[in-house]
Amino acid sequence: MFNEEMHFESPIRWGMVGGGRGSEIGYSHRAAAQRDRLFSFVAGALDLNAERGKEFGMNLGLAADRCYPDYKTMFAEEAKREDGIQAVSIATPNSTHAEIAKAALEAGLHVVCEKPVTVHVEEALELKTLAEKQNKMLAVMYGYCGFQMVHQAREMVQRGDIGAVRVIQMSFAHGFHNTEVEKDNPGAKWRMNPEVSGPSFIIGDCGTHPFYMAGLITGLKVKSLMCSRQSFIESRAPLEDNAHVVFNFEGGAVGTLWASAINSGSMHQQKIRIVGEKASLEWWDEYPNQLRYEVQGEPARILERGMPYLHNDSPGVSANRQGGGHAEGFFESWANIYHRYALAIDAFERGDTQFLEGHWYPNIDGGIDGVKMVNACARSADQGAVWVDYD
Amino acid sequence: MFNEEMHFESPIRWGMVGGGRGSEIGYSHRAAAQRDRLFSFVAGALDLNAERGKEFGMNLGLAADRCYPDYKTMFAEEAKREDGIQAVSIATPNSTHAEIAKAALEAGLHVVCEKPVTVHVEEALELKTLAEKQNKMLAVMYGYCGFQMVHQAREMVQRGDIGAVRVIQMSFAHGFHNTEVEKDNPGAKWRMNPEVSGPSFIIGDCGTHPFYMAGLITGLKVKSLMCSRQSFIESRAPLEDNAHVVFNFEGGAVGTLWASAINSGSMHQQKIRIVGEKASLEWWDEYPNQLRYEVQGEPARILERGMPYLHNDSPGVSANRQGGGHAEGFFESWANIYHRYALAIDAFERGDTQFLEGHWYPNIDGGIDGVKMVNACARSADQGAVWVDYD
Amino acid sequence: MFNEEMHFESPIRWGMVGGGRGSEIGYSHRAAAQRDRLFSFVAGALDLNAERGKEFGMNLGLAADRCYPDYKTMFAEEAKREDGIQAVSIATPNSTHAEIAKAALEAGLHVVCEKPVTVHVEEALELKTLAEKQNKMLAVMYGYCGFQMVHQAREMVQRGDIGAVRVIQMSFAHGFHNTEVEKDNPGAKWRMNPEVSGPSFIIGDCGTHPFYMAGLITGLKVKSLMCSRQSFIESRAPLEDNAHVVFNFEGGAVGTLWASAINSGSMHQQKIRIVGEKASLEWWDEYPNQLRYEVQGEPARILERGMPYLHNDSPGVSANRQGGGHAEGFFESWANIYHRYALAIDAFERGDTQFLEGHWYPNIDGGIDGVKMVNACARSADQGAVWVDYD
Amino acid sequence: MFNEEMHFESPIRWGMVGGGRGSEIGYSHRAAAQRDRLFSFVAGALDLNAERGKEFGMNLGLAADRCYPDYKTMFAEEAKREDGIQAVSIATPNSTHAEIAKAALEAGLHVVCEKPVTVHVEEALELKTLAEKQNKMLAVMYGYCGFQMVHQAREMVQRGDIGAVRVIQMSFAHGFHNTEVEKDNPGAKWRMNPEVSGPSFIIGDCGTHPFYMAGLITGLKVKSLMCSRQSFIESRAPLEDNAHVVFNFEGGAVGTLWASAINSGSMHQQKIRIVGEKASLEWWDEYPNQLRYEVQGEPARILERGMPYLHNDSPGVSANRQGGGHAEGFFESWANIYHRYALAIDAFERGDTQFLEGHWYPNIDGGIDGVKMVNACARSADQGAVWVDYD
Repeated sequence: MFNEEMHFESPIRWGMVGGGRGSEIGYSHRAAAQRDRLFSFVAGALDLNAERGKEFGMNLGLAADRCYPDYKTMFAEEAKREDGIQAVSIATPNSTHAEIAKAALEAGLHVVCEKPVTVHVEEALELKTLAEKQNKMLAVMYGYCGFQMVHQAREMVQRGDIGAVRVIQMSFAHGFHNTEVEKDNPGAKWRMNPEVSGPSFIIGDCGTHPFYMAGLITGLKVKSLMCSRQSFIESRAPLEDNAHVVFNFEGGAVGTLWASAINSGSMHQQKIRIVGEKASLEWWDEYPNQLRYEVQGEPARILERGMPYLHNDSPGVSANRQGGGHAEGFFESWANIYHRYALAIDAFERGDTQFLEGHWYPNIDGGIDGVKMVNACARSADQGAVWVDYD
Repeated sequence: MFNEEMHFESPIRWGMVGGGRGSEIGYSHRAAAQRDRLFSFVAGALDLNAERGKEFGMNLGLAADRCYPDYKTMFAEEAKREDGIQAVSIATPNSTHAEIAKAALEAGLHVVCEKPVTVHVEEALELKTLAEKQNKMLAVMYGYCGFQMVHQAREMVQRGDIGAVRVIQMSFAHGFHNTEVEKDNPGAKWRMNPEVSGPSFIIGDCGTHPFYMAGLITGLKVKSLMCSRQSFIESRAPLEDNAHVVFNFEGGAVGTLWASAINSGSMHQQKIRIVGEKASLEWWDEYPNQLRYEVQGEPARILERGMPYLHNDSPGVSANRQGGGHAEGFFESWANIYHRYALAIDAFERGDTQFLEGHWYPNIDGGIDGVKMVNACARSADQGAVWVDYD
Repeated sequence: MFNEEMHFESPIRWGMVGGGRGSEIGYSHRAAAQRDRLFSFVAGALDLNAERGKEFGMNLGLAADRCYPDYKTMFAEEAKREDGIQAVSIATPNSTHAEIAKAALEAGLHVVCEKPVTVHVEEALELKTLAEKQNKMLAVMYGYCGFQMVHQAREMVQRGDIGAVRVIQMSFAHGFHNTEVEKDNPGAKWRMNPEVSGPSFIIGDCGTHPFYMAGLITGLKVKSLMCSRQSFIESRAPLEDNAHVVFNFEGGAVGTLWASAINSGSMHQQKIRIVGEKASLEWWDEYPNQLRYEVQGEPARILERGMPYLHNDSPGVSANRQGGGHAEGFFESWANIYHRYALAIDAFERGDTQFLEGHWYPNIDGGIDGVKMVNACARSADQGAVWVDYD
Repeated sequence: MFNEEMHFESPIRWGMVGGGRGSEIGYSHRAAAQRDRLFSFVAGALDLNAERGKEFGMNLGLAADRCYPDYKTMFAEEAKREDGIQAVSIATPNSTHAEIAKAALEAGLHVVCEKPVTVHVEEALELKTLAEKQNKMLAVMYGYCGFQMVHQAREMVQRGDIGAVRVIQMSFAHGFHNTEVEKDNPGAKWRMNPEVSGPSFIIGDCGTHPFYMAGLITGLKVKSLMCSRQSFIESRAPLEDNAHVVFNFEGGAVGTLWASAINSGSMHQQKIRIVGEKASLEWWDEYPNQLRYEVQGEPARILERGMPYLHNDSPGVSANRQGGGHAEGFFESWANIYHRYALAIDAFERGDTQFLEGHWYPNIDGGIDGVKMVNACARSADQGAVWVDYD
């Protein structure tokens, strides 16, 4: 059961870059960080428009002088304060992640970065090195990986409940961009601009989520992949609004990923099915409290969040905020992840490497993997959907 | 879209009676009240065991001197402070609600009371009178009524989308008490003790939820009812662990309610189906982001939370914290309700009766209705499941 | 596995009364009887309009001289033939069943009668006595009871898989008559005429189906019941288009039945849920290949038709015509039942009482039970929805 | 509504090659052909073991002298009879289809052949030429294409209800062969033997079904494809038990197919999703009476079989045997197809080319397409999962 009493004498002082007014993702970060009283939101460079950012920040409860016009000023000014921020979350367009994260680590901050953590793999690797040198947490926000049933799936695979993994079917295929909606939607527009978004639109924006989960649950590494992608709204070229990826994993498992923004009528269809020798697991983010467990030759079982028959979570970081039957959702997933971030930061601060060894959270390795996948997909697609090595 | 910026210069100072360590409902209240920064949790009489309550309160961030041994002390001491609490939530066993709520109102506090608000109808009516005299908010916590799709259902019925209502099918029928679990579970045990719980166990504990929603959505009033109830675990007698209620509503509609704690294998089965002349609506709390809308002679439609085709909510109190496709859950429902409480309290404080007239939240009228229903059910059942008038 | 080779050297010579052109139920009988080559359709009095009946019968392949103007002529003429019919199915309006069935038995025929077998209980009891005297099969067509998953449910309850039964929830609630469709639909019109239909419309027409299944699966007998019924389309009074029934079964189990023709937007909603001490079973005729099995404290299981983990059926009468995964439906249920009728008739003809003792098919006892239930409901409702004894 | 009266004065005299005792597919053919009294089963060469075949055929009602030891004898002997067969269905292992179908056509018979119609494309093309020369029907049994909702999907796409097709997602992925079940199962064993089965196991056995439907519904032709396949049970190599295929269709649409026999715990997962510019359609063979229709920006709609809002079928060949709400299944799909075969054969016999032009049934063109697809997949996979042209 979730332990409401877990908190810190002094919550982690925390700021944000990006996530200004109208950003759903900005709200998600703030709601998640503050959910369990482990972070205190005290500073922000929330908007490229400094005035708007300041007004918004103050409305959110920030002091006027801690609403900064840009991240550089924020990092510099906060460093001068005794009560300056200890951690920062970055929720800006993709192409800016690398430089902001670098500056944050150099300023001695723990970092939570939106995915994709960078556009180029090298940048991500450099960030990892820098974080290690600075001895700071460098996390990447895969917001769907905090659901209890995702962790249950991971435990089941690790414990052998389904046998060796053979096939992984992944999808995140919505229909919200089946027409050229970006014309009137700046929040969508930058995602289809390669200079800001990087070499991919929908694979990076959506496909990386179930891909990260597949790695989290199975531990399998990709060996090679083939990507066929399309721009059904032609103005989106060279970026894709639909893609099919086929994977070969090390050890012989295979998989596919369907990432789409033009899957008319679909809400999300973020689904993952893990087929093992003996059984399969299937999870769908629109109905996140259930996990389907299908043993060949037995009736399919519907596992429910919050039930005693589930595997135990790591002590202290249970994802169960209420008993079974009550629907949990997206915000609990995010809050669970930020809870794990807080525990990690605390351990970094205390130098508790033992705790960190046994503690999972979506970190830079998952971020690197996502960037690699996106780049390999672009390489494959741009050569005519040929097979390419992953590394 | 949810407005994250809505908050008060000074959040409402808020305390709790009950909801101590291990209480799921206590956590639900605290998480909901603090979610949108509209309430500040500053005082509590959380436990009958004063020491345990104090330790728990301090772990939750209360000052030591605002962890009180009992509600009387709390109300008295807080009244002396300039920064004393303005509102209190009561999450204690049923039989104590009346006296605590009365004391709170007399102490000049706004009150949120767990359901059933009282055991006897007269007590509830007295509380209503007292709240009016004191000009304070008196709310009753029906935690499932904050889901957007419940409000969508209400809007649809009010706008005539289904025609005149003919039948209402309600259920809340779980299986968690199919054996005598209360032996080792004090949180369950008091609910089956008529001296603490009142004249009903499962009708009051669970049945009141969909019943309240039926009223909220349709506005229909019960005329008469018939209740057949059982104690399948005999030691629970005279309280029931299973009940079937049949309703006659004013105007000719009819309905049924199945409340059960012995529905083996069921998680919740809190469902409501509203059958109108032209169409039906169906909602299920385990999958709360969908609302089924079935027009006779047309394909059934699955409405999804967060979509533009939904009816507009009242400005400023939208239940949409994220776009469609993302699962919201139980905690958002609670947070939405506390958000509405905050707006109501603020209006009471400002004397803004105009706002209050147009503002909905689960208030004492719903609470009275629930108590009436529970009592009428007990009356019916105890006379051999005969029809009884509702009033 | 279904045995396609099971057939008789001479198929049973079989005729029909009623079920003329445009009758869905007539087609269902013919399709079911002929499915496994166990019956040979050779005579009919298919229509009140003799000309139309003859043309229709000939189109169906009957010889001209075996298309009769009425059942009396048919029984008399067929009795004169060496190759006269051995069995007859009756698919006429309710009020005519008793006299036709009586005449058929007196003519030495085995009888399959549509439900309700009669309007009055006494008539049904007389038919039973007559059938015993004549040593003929007297079956009642409950067409949904031939699904394999219904039999699986029965086996599971009998073997104790769910423990003692506590609650039975039944419904058959469609929306096809939410307006006065009978104006232009003679097939619907007679069902709402008490002189033809008997004392009930929708309880008899639909409610008897899940009620029969409940008895089949659990073996429980009703002790008393309460029925509240309405005529939402007023011209249907005194017959109801919506009803709620509450049951007390012998031994302490309880249950409810919702029968409706005005459940707007619903296709059938023929569902049955059997709650036992340990587990529940749930089946829905619109998705008949699945049976939900929910053991308290374990993940719900979805049992699938055609799988080896199901209980064995009685040898020779398996309902499995194909392996699991292939959808079977309504017509297989009917064919399975007629298959069982054929085996029963054959055993009657051979005087094989031992076979008959171990052989199940929907017989007159189920028919009597249905008539009793319908009559008890009418008695209850007409006295103001009071409790009435079943017998 | 289905017209039960449609039949022929003399049913088509029909025989079978293969489909002996224990063959599910044999039973499916016989049940379907005889369902509507349009075919009369009069001859068979049902088994390689002549004795067993004869015994079985006689048990099925064949005359002893029309139970033949092999197809050659059957075609020769039947040709001598005035009442010899007019049509034959071939349900033998894949590698034998070509020669038997050729012999049947040469013997002047109409032919229904199990899929894949041949192993090599050239053989299929030759059969087509031969059928045209002989002026006989040459049909290929894709048994899932007779469901009404599949035809509804086709009508909707043809009428523009979803806009131009962009993506087609197909799967048929069961788990029944997740271990080496063929050791004890001769019916499975030959399917994994390339000499009998041809160049593919599961793509041919299962993948061809949704692939055929995709063509039927959308009319799109494949331009190129890429196939990655595996033999998770190694002894099955070179044939695959799992495959992922990616398609480019003419005109720019894309698609994928997942065919698998090792998808542990899955019953069928035969699904097809057609994504158009405006809306998507989704159908699943395990729940065949529903068709999901999702218009972007509107609530998803669940279309139900048998409802008046569906598009009209071609007169005389409606797939509706009962009103909506009643579950139809696999056997109705087959019967509907054989019904269409009967109408086609009748038109061939009458020389009614006009009827044939407007009449759809799964014919040799669909068969050729399936063989092409299977062969292109094998070519692709064997070169390392490269892209290959379809033709």
